[in-house]
Amino acid sequence: MSTDSLQKDIVTPCIYHSREPLNLECGARLSKYQLVYETYGRLNAKKNNAILVCPALTANHHASGYSSIDDNKPGWWNDFIGKGKALDTNKFFVVCVNNIGGCHGSTGPLSINPHTNKRFAAQFPIVTVVDWVHSQNKLAQYLQIDQWHAVVGGSLGGMQVLQWSISYPDKVRHAIIIAAAAKLSAQNIAFNEIARRAIMTDSNFYDGNYADFSTPTTKTFPKSGLTLARMIGHVTYLSEHAMREKFGRELRSGKLNFSYDTEFQIEGYLRYQGDVFADNFDANSYLLMTKALDYFDPASRYDNNLELCLAHTQSNFFIISFSSDWRFPPERSQEISHALMAAKKNVSYLEIESNKGHDAFLIKNDTYIAALRAYLDNTIVN
Amino acid sequence: MSTDSLQKDIVTPCIYHSREPLNLECGARLSKYQLVYETYGRLNAKKNNAILVCPALTANHHASGYSSIDDNKPGWWNDFIGKGKALDTNKFFVVCVNNIGGCHGSTGPLSINPHTNKRFAAQFPIVTVVDWVHSQNKLAQYLQIDQWHAVVGGSLGGMQVLQWSISYPDKVRHAIIIAAAAKLSAQNIAFNEIARRAIMTDSNFYDGNYADFSTPTTKTFPKSGLTLARMIGHVTYLSEHAMREKFGRELRSGKLNFSYDTEFQIEGYLRYQGDVFADNFDANSYLLMTKALDYFDPASRYDNNLELCLAHTQSNFFIISFSSDWRFPPERSQEISHALMAAKKNVSYLEIESNKGHDAFLIKNDTYIAALRAYLDNTIVN
Repeated sequence: MSTDSLQKDIVTPCIYHSREPLNLECGARLSKYQLVYETYGRLNAKKNNAILVCPALTANHHASGYSSIDDNKPGWWNDFIGKGKALDTNKFFVVCVNNIGGCHGSTGPLSINPHTNKRFAAQFPIVTVVDWVHSQNKLAQYLQIDQWHAVVGGSLGGMQVLQWSISYPDKVRHAIIIAAAAKLSAQNIAFNEIARRAIMTDSNFYDGNYADFSTPTTKTFPKSGLTLARMIGHVTYLSEHAMREKFGRELRSGKLNFSYDTEFQIEGYLRYQGDVFADNFDANSYLLMTKALDYFDPASRYDNNLELCLAHTQSNFFIISFSSDWRFPPERSQEISHALMAAKKNVSYLEIESNKGHDAFLIKNDTYIAALRAYLDNTIVN
Repeated sequence: MSTDSLQKDIVTPCIYHSREPLNLECGARLSKYQLVYETYGRLNAKKNNAILVCPALTANHHASGYSSIDDNKPGWWNDFIGKGKALDTNKFFVVCVNNIGGCHGSTGPLSINPHTNKRFAAQFPIVTVVDWVHSQNKLAQYLQIDQWHAVVGGSLGGMQVLQWSISYPDKVRHAIIIAAAAKLSAQNIAFNEIARRAIMTDSNFYDGNYADFSTPTTKTFPKSGLTLARMIGHVTYLSEHAMREKFGRELRSGKLNFSYDTEFQIEGYLRYQGDVFADNFDANSYLLMTKALDYFDPASRYDNNLELCLAHTQSNFFIISFSSDWRFPPERSQEISHALMAAKKNVSYLEIESNKGHDAFLIKNDTYIAALRAYLDNTIVN
């Protein structure tokens, strides 16, 4: 056993079972539901050192540490959460959750619908960021956390942070919103729609009920469509610069073959990443997540006035963007910052120089880590 | 009959039948081929007033005028070609061609393979920009045009112009390269690959031999995949700004329906445009066109040194880019301009302010029209 594995933080996920139904924004109602979550560090006696990390599109509750001694792939934000790290678990109690509609243990399309005793599959109702924040608040109540010291998230996770500050103004001391936007642009929606069309027009989609067509030996699911959807997403997560640096026009075999096989390295990379993803994510969940993105638009309830929408928030805000992010470019973060300033809120804004595109919010970067650490170190846990 | 239709320029396409085979860059050989083309204006006695317009990805030979009195949709560059227009047919003889591999009359996947007496379909060989320029040169010889006054094109058309100046240095007096690049970036290739995957994984693709599965009443073809491919392309032709201005987050029914039906205007627009395109373009041709884009890289034969590659060109160059074009951004045009300057060639470069994205090269714009007109008016037809 290596020193490394001796030092591995092994994390076991927990499950919160709701005692009451959840009324969703779409009008549907989940009569019961469960949330899978993980925690890192210890909740102090005053229960005021808790940080909620909200997951992005396809991320789940496993944000830090390892699932077992043999596990070699740590959680998706492991560089940021842990002892002595930016979200220092010597000081903070960090919680991360798999959202409703997901496919990693929380109630979603893979769950059994208690009314039919069959999988929800395509019948799972459309969920929104508002619904997620409501369900996360139920988890907070269960954990006896009256107020989060901070709620933190990137991309779709950042949208949840913003919604927390709106839905529960007195329950979020610090709102850290990274590489996010107050709403999607037409271009964002267009890419999501193309991804959904790729899944839904796959001949193995069967109106979302693909699992019914699986046999004991063959899993039926819209693999091509889900792979394509991920490939589309992936291109928008990377900057043009990062792709050029990493792949350029490099050929897989060193020469042109004049065929439709994979010629360029970038083609092989995207196909491989798409393939791996498709084998590990549920297509119905992917559809739901993209819809939650599209629908997020808190200002729409305030006559499209974001300043008005944020007027009753009470959090301190820290907004972070990345220079080469073209999915949610700095301008989108600035919109949030400007609205908060106009509403006379306490807000800090930082644009970090990075060539990693939207993916930068997941990647270790000295300025990024230092900024998160400095912000949190300067917050006082009463 | 309206005044308008009385004034309509009715254009009839011509066909050039090759007298000799065409050896393609991929190693294959077309034993015979035909090119469909249109001409506007008159070739003068000296045959030195001819302008070749090279088509972009899905454009064809019908660049100007109307196909019939009842036709209400003029050619794709009608705003630019005609009497008194920037490419003034009172002065110039303008030629536009459908390239080999296309689906509008020139030899391509829809043509009969003389060796099998069946459609080429998926067996049509991969064609490149070099091949196109060679075949266009055969057409020039047939038309007895020893030197083009100008070769003009946008996007993939601009790549053909660049290749003309390299392949036939003494046959292009003026090379006008619009919204193009000397090679695709990794991101460009990625989008093309995703588009191809969408087509090739469609269950109606049948390895490209979909026409064999048509019945007298039903046309079989990869409609979903081709629609998706076009939707992907379409998003990359538009600027984020243009999409926001035109569609924003406008809802089709005025309210959210929480369903996977088309909710936002942008979704409906893209689907409709994709659908219409898919009904009018051949999937195998689309695959070929995207491959020609990917493979274009004239500097690769000169140790990736574009300056060296352009050293023996003799044309005067006019390079145009558009500020909001993110498919072939101004930087790509500047690369060509800088290489030409380094090679001490005669080059003018103009970046035009526009919020129309890559599509700007097809759209009327005062500065754009004025620049083309001024450039051509100042060229002397000897």
